[in-house]
Amino acid sequence: MRVVITGGGGFIGSRVARALLARGKLTAPDGGEREITRLVLLDAAFPAGSPEDRRVEAVTGDVAERAVVERAVTPDTASVFHLAAVVSGAAEADFDLGMRANLEGTRVLLERLRQCARPARMVFASSVAAFGGELPPVLDDSTTPMPQTSYGTQKVVSEYLISDYSRKGFVDGRSLRLPTIVVRPGKPNAAASSFASGILREPLNGVVSECPVDAGTEVWLLSPRRVVEAFVHAHELPAQAWGTRRVVNLPGITATVAEMVEALGRVAGAAASKRVVWKPDARIQAIVRTWPGRFETPRALAMGFRADPDVETVIRDYIADEAIKPA
Amino acid sequence: MRVVITGGGGFIGSRVARALLARGKLTAPDGGEREITRLVLLDAAFPAGSPEDRRVEAVTGDVAERAVVERAVTPDTASVFHLAAVVSGAAEADFDLGMRANLEGTRVLLERLRQCARPARMVFASSVAAFGGELPPVLDDSTTPMPQTSYGTQKVVSEYLISDYSRKGFVDGRSLRLPTIVVRPGKPNAAASSFASGILREPLNGVVSECPVDAGTEVWLLSPRRVVEAFVHAHELPAQAWGTRRVVNLPGITATVAEMVEALGRVAGAAASKRVVWKPDARIQAIVRTWPGRFETPRALAMGFRADPDVETVIRDYIADEAIKPA
Repeated sequence: MRVVITGGGGFIGSRVARALLARGKLTAPDGGEREITRLVLLDAAFPAGSPEDRRVEAVTGDVAERAVVERAVTPDTASVFHLAAVVSGAAEADFDLGMRANLEGTRVLLERLRQCARPARMVFASSVAAFGGELPPVLDDSTTPMPQTSYGTQKVVSEYLISDYSRKGFVDGRSLRLPTIVVRPGKPNAAASSFASGILREPLNGVVSECPVDAGTEVWLLSPRRVVEAFVHAHELPAQAWGTRRVVNLPGITATVAEMVEALGRVAGAAASKRVVWKPDARIQAIVRTWPGRFETPRALAMGFRADPDVETVIRDYIADEAIKPA
Repeated sequence: MRVVITGGGGFIGSRVARALLARGKLTAPDGGEREITRLVLLDAAFPAGSPEDRRVEAVTGDVAERAVVERAVTPDTASVFHLAAVVSGAAEADFDLGMRANLEGTRVLLERLRQCARPARMVFASSVAAFGGELPPVLDDSTTPMPQTSYGTQKVVSEYLISDYSRKGFVDGRSLRLPTIVVRPGKPNAAASSFASGILREPLNGVVSECPVDAGTEVWLLSPRRVVEAFVHAHELPAQAWGTRRVVNLPGITATVAEMVEALGRVAGAAASKRVVWKPDARIQAIVRTWPGRFETPRALAMGFRADPDVETVIRDYIADEAIKPA
């Protein structure tokens, strides 16, 4: 079977790719388990060290460009993991860029998927940025999305379109509202949430990290391990498990920035935690303040999704997965 | 000031036009009250008897076509009432048509409004069709939209886009979730809600009306008088009255189809109510069943929107406004 990952060159996309290659099989639209014979990674660019495997085909291009999507998503495509996106800070700074990548990209993909021989399973990376404005202290499955960023709006709009395309039988869609993913390896990026990984990652590498938000800022977080599991699990669940609700808030854990820095100290020593310096940034604060920090996620838990046990485990898993030698 | 009504040739649009012409003034983007010097009605077609007034300019064309929208919405436009839409039954039967008119139309309009000299006030006709799926017995301002029709999806997506364009300061948008409008004059149309007017209108004209839904079906309804008032009121409220929530569920009244037919009998006699014949239609039932019948609307009431007192008044107002002589 043919499987496509948009954003397949990115941080999460490349890890989902590795997990699928290791797994070797997925449930096909007919409900049977099939070998993954072709794994197409669609992205604007691919870093060095992308997976080399005879099953992998890289398609370089813009996810909002029809010709590019048609090349990646052939009518025999069985599954799509849709992760390509312009991150929150960039979509806020450049409205047109965000609308094109995050909304038009989803629309072009959905239209292409309508042409598939059988409705493809589609797992979409939505975000906790769906929520904002006046929020209850603890959000739950009934909380109405009210995004306060363009990124969040584009994610929510994509969710609604995927739900309607699913209702019509054009695709078999499943949208996951991702917590902030911590620890994200590599360099800081334009996501407003970039600091949440930076304050753990940089000190582990012996580098000072500037934290742009208050120590008391709560982050709703999930590790790379758990989010990759969530994508595969969301794909494998039968359509009946989703019913008419094609969106789910993923489980996560709540930690303040201060608690994250303390956990870092316990794992890697006080020298590491002292490498976090506090440097408030009003623009980042304004975006992050609109994000919720506490959830109850009974639906996701009942569906079999799971969170990390605690921040220390998240840090230890990062050190193991990325073969870090703490400085 | 220049004011544009998309769908200005339609049932509600033409009545909003008449109300604005009679009123003569509206609040401009600078907060001051200004004369309406130009009222542009944009629609695919205009019925005979459209308002003749030196201030009125009719633009005939497709609301999803950029050139048409650019002709109607010049950069000096101060206000837009966005009512153009493909109705629910038609958008369900022809998915592409609905996406184009109801989603692409809103996007083209929003992009054009970004070019206005000052952010224009924009009042959008959304719908109670935003809601569906598993619903509480009584919906309120916190109920999450979960449309079960493509029409409802396109309305919700438009709401989210209008809210984000408003947050960015590109427009000053206000979305109204309209109840089913009763009594709609003229002929039955492709809206799944068409019966709700038909069972009152046709019998008053001495014509038999087939009711496609059960007598116990609850309808959440508002009269043409009140909805025209609501559009003007939504426009005139200052931006602060909306805050970050740019969408409101309008007030209405709940009546079962049986109660509507009984009210018809009290107003126009038993002969009229006997002209309703019951002929269930599974397709219509399936759509209408997804719509909610009962709401609490404290936010709208606090903002000064109002409902009709009862169904009899709705019928009497229709008879007066349309100069009907009950058969």
